[in-house]
Amino acid sequence: MSIKPLASVILTFVCGTTLAQPAQPLPDPATTDPRTLGWMQGFPPAPEKTIRFEDGSFYKFPRTRWTFSHVRELWPTANVWRGPSAATPLSAAPRPLDAISFTDDKGGKTTWAEMLTRTYTDSILVLHKGRIVYEKYMNIAEPQVPHSVFSITKSFVGVLAATLAAEGTLDLDAPVVKYIPELKDGAYGDATVRNLMDMTVGVRYSEKYADPKAEIWDYSRAGGSLPVAADYAGPKTFYEFLLTLKKEGSHGEAFAYKTVNTEVLAWIIKRVSGKSLSALMSEKIWQPLGVENDAYFTVDAIGTEGGGGGLNLTLRDMARFGDMMRLGGKYNGRQIIPQTVIDDIRKGGDPAKFTKAAYPDVPGYGKGSSYRSMWWVSHNAHEVFDARGIHGQRIYIDPKADLVVVKLSSHPVASNLANIPLTDRAIEAVAAHLMND
Amino acid sequence: MSIKPLASVILTFVCGTTLAQPAQPLPDPATTDPRTLGWMQGFPPAPEKTIRFEDGSFYKFPRTRWTFSHVRELWPTANVWRGPSAATPLSAAPRPLDAISFTDDKGGKTTWAEMLTRTYTDSILVLHKGRIVYEKYMNIAEPQVPHSVFSITKSFVGVLAATLAAEGTLDLDAPVVKYIPELKDGAYGDATVRNLMDMTVGVRYSEKYADPKAEIWDYSRAGGSLPVAADYAGPKTFYEFLLTLKKEGSHGEAFAYKTVNTEVLAWIIKRVSGKSLSALMSEKIWQPLGVENDAYFTVDAIGTEGGGGGLNLTLRDMARFGDMMRLGGKYNGRQIIPQTVIDDIRKGGDPAKFTKAAYPDVPGYGKGSSYRSMWWVSHNAHEVFDARGIHGQRIYIDPKADLVVVKLSSHPVASNLANIPLTDRAIEAVAAHLMND
Repeated sequence: MSIKPLASVILTFVCGTTLAQPAQPLPDPATTDPRTLGWMQGFPPAPEKTIRFEDGSFYKFPRTRWTFSHVRELWPTANVWRGPSAATPLSAAPRPLDAISFTDDKGGKTTWAEMLTRTYTDSILVLHKGRIVYEKYMNIAEPQVPHSVFSITKSFVGVLAATLAAEGTLDLDAPVVKYIPELKDGAYGDATVRNLMDMTVGVRYSEKYADPKAEIWDYSRAGGSLPVAADYAGPKTFYEFLLTLKKEGSHGEAFAYKTVNTEVLAWIIKRVSGKSLSALMSEKIWQPLGVENDAYFTVDAIGTEGGGGGLNLTLRDMARFGDMMRLGGKYNGRQIIPQTVIDDIRKGGDPAKFTKAAYPDVPGYGKGSSYRSMWWVSHNAHEVFDARGIHGQRIYIDPKADLVVVKLSSHPVASNLANIPLTDRAIEAVAAHLMND
Repeated sequence: MSIKPLASVILTFVCGTTLAQPAQPLPDPATTDPRTLGWMQGFPPAPEKTIRFEDGSFYKFPRTRWTFSHVRELWPTANVWRGPSAATPLSAAPRPLDAISFTDDKGGKTTWAEMLTRTYTDSILVLHKGRIVYEKYMNIAEPQVPHSVFSITKSFVGVLAATLAAEGTLDLDAPVVKYIPELKDGAYGDATVRNLMDMTVGVRYSEKYADPKAEIWDYSRAGGSLPVAADYAGPKTFYEFLLTLKKEGSHGEAFAYKTVNTEVLAWIIKRVSGKSLSALMSEKIWQPLGVENDAYFTVDAIGTEGGGGGLNLTLRDMARFGDMMRLGGKYNGRQIIPQTVIDDIRKGGDPAKFTKAAYPDVPGYGKGSSYRSMWWVSHNAHEVFDARGIHGQRIYIDPKADLVVVKLSSHPVASNLANIPLTDRAIEAVAAHLMND
C-alpha cells in the first residue's frame, strides 16, 4: 500500500467515515508486527522507529498497529471507572473455529483463521449463548490493554442518550436548542434530538478527506486529534467547533453519517445529566456490567471527551457490553439498560431514509437496512445489529444465533468496505456452524 | 498568597524541590474548592474558569486543587495495570481522631482536623496495625480518582531498582555506564548506580526556580510538562535531556536532591528489565499488592514515563503500598518486595553525607537523618521513614506505632517546609494516642 499524504490519512482516525477501497495490493499482515519491525521497541526506541503525536507519524500504517493500542500515551484522556467490584465472570467453552471455511466476498474459498489475518485483526472474541467459544490475541494485543474503537464510541453515546430518555431526563423529540441554546444560529437551530440519534441532520460538514477544505479538518484540529501549526487560530475545543457549523439541506429526510452529530448528542447528555461522558458511562454501563478494566476517552484541550470516536476498550469488556445488548439490556443479574431502549434499536430506523443516503452499499446493509440511535440495523433474517469503527472495530450481535462477536483491528485501509464484507461472511459461517451444532 | 509568575511556579510541578516559605498569608482553604469557585464546572466551563495545558494555567493555585486530581486529562499517560484479581480487602476500625490536639510547629494549640484543613488536604488515610482507623476525602477528592504524588514517584523507582538488585538483575555498585553507555561523556560517566539511589551525584543541575537558566527548565520542557514556544529546539524527550547533563563536583560525598538522578535510575531499570516503568511497577508491585485501581504515569513525547515525579495513585492503593513497606515487604499473603530491600532502606544512608547537604532543615530530618534508595529515613526513636512529594503528598511509616499515614494534598506552596512540620506534629500526636490506647 502506498502511504497517503499525512493530511489525508489522519482525519479518519477520529471520524471513521467510509472511503473507497484502494487499488494497490495490501501489505502482508504477517510482516507488520511492531515488535518484529522495531516500532517503539527499546529504551529509547531507535529514532527512525519512534512514533510521536507532533509529527503525525502515529497514523501511518504499519505504525497504527502500535498506535491503536497505545492511544493514551499520545493524547490526554478521561477515565471510565470500572467500579469497586470484582468482574463478572465470563465462562469459556472453547470451540475449534479456525478451520471453518466459507466463500469470501470475492468468490474465493477461505477460512475463519485466514479471515483474521487478512483483516489485520488485533483481537477477537466470540460469545455463543454468553460463553466464550473463541478468544484470540494477535499482533501486539493483550487482554488488559484498551484499544481504540473509533466510531463504536457513537453507539455507546446513543445507548446513553436513549437511556436518559427512558428515564425521563431527555426528550428525544425536543429541539436540540431546548438543551443547547448556544446552537440556535447554526446547523442545529431547527433539528431535533432524534435527528441526531438517527443521523438525519442537514449540516454542511464534509468528511471527504481529499478536500483540504472539508470540515473534518477543522473538527480534528479543534478536538486535538491533529497537531496544529504555530499560527493556528481556529476553534480549540469541540464546543467551539460545533458552534461554527451551518445548515445544508433539511433535517429528518435522509440518512447522512456525520460524526459531528454525535458530538452534539454527547453535549446534550452531559448538560442534562450534569455529568461528563466518562462519568455517565461509568455509572450507567461500565460499573453495572462488572467489567474487568477501566475504559477511557481521548479529550480535547479542555478535557471534553471525543463523543464521536474517542473511546478505548478492552476486548472482553466490549464482549460483556455486546452480550448485554443481545440480552435486551439485562446482564450481571440486573436490568442495566431499559429493555425498551434495546427493543427500539432492534426495531431500527426508517429504511427509506437509509436508502436515500449517498452511502456506499455494504453487504447486509443496503436496501431495507437502517440506522437507529447510533446503531446499524440489518433487518436481515438473523436480525443482526451492530456497532462499527473504522479500521475494523466491531460489535456484531446476531440474536437468532445467540451470538456476539467483538473484534479489534488495525486494518490499513480506512474503509468499512475493506474489511466488513469478508468479516461478515466469516461470522455468518460461524453462526451457521454454532446453530447447527 | 500572591500568584507567582507562570515561569516560576510551573517547574516544581515536576520536581518537588524544597523552596523557601513565602511571607504572604495563605488563602483560606475553605474558599478554594474548585466546585464552589466554578473551576472546570459545566459543559463547557466558563472561559475564565477553564484550565488548560497550553497556557500553563493548570499550575496556578487554586486551580491546582483541580489539576492534581485530573492530570491525565491534561497530559498523555501510561497505565499501571492493577491485574485481573479482586482487590485485597482493607478492614476498617474507625477511630475519632478529629479532636486530638497537639502543639503545632509555631507553638499554637491545634487539632488533627484543623491540620487537615490548614495543609490543604485532598484525602488522608490512617492505617493502624493494618486496619483503617481514619479515612477522609476533602476538596474534590474521590476514592477512585488517582492524584499526583509528585516525588513519591522516586520512592517507587527506588524500591523497583533495589528489588531488581536483590533478584540479581542489577548491580547497585556498578557504574551507571555499564547499563547506559550513552551517558559516558556527561555527568554520570563515573557515577555508580548507588550514587543515584542515594542522591549523591555531582551534577550541574539546578532546581532553583528563580533562575530562568536553571536546568530544571530544560528538564520540564524536554519531558513535556511545560508548553514550549513554536521555535523550541531543545531536547524533546527525557533521554535527550539526560545526555546534556555535565558533571559538577564529585560523586558519593554529599546528599544533593536532584530529580534527574531518578530519571537516570528509571532508564537503567527499564534497560535491564526490558520493560517500561509502568509494566515493571504493575508486575512487581501493583498486581501482587492487589490494589483497587490502576495507577498511571505522565509520559514525554515518545511515551517515556516521568520517573522523577510522574506517578498518580489513589489513596487506598498508596496505603496498601505503605503497609507493605511497614511489614517488611509482605502483603496480601506473600512476600512482594524482598525483606532485605526494606531492611536496607530502614537502615538508611550515611547521615554524615545528609548533613553535608545544603538542604533546609526539616523537623525530624536534620542532623542524624539520611536518604536511602529514594526514601527519607529519620533515624528517630520511632524509626520513621517516608516518601514525600511536593504540595503535601506523603507516605509516612512509623514501625514502632504500627502506623501508616498516606496523604494527598494541594497545598499552594511548593515547599515541604510549608506543610511537613505541621503534618508531622499531628501524626506524632495520633501515633501516641493509638499506642497508648
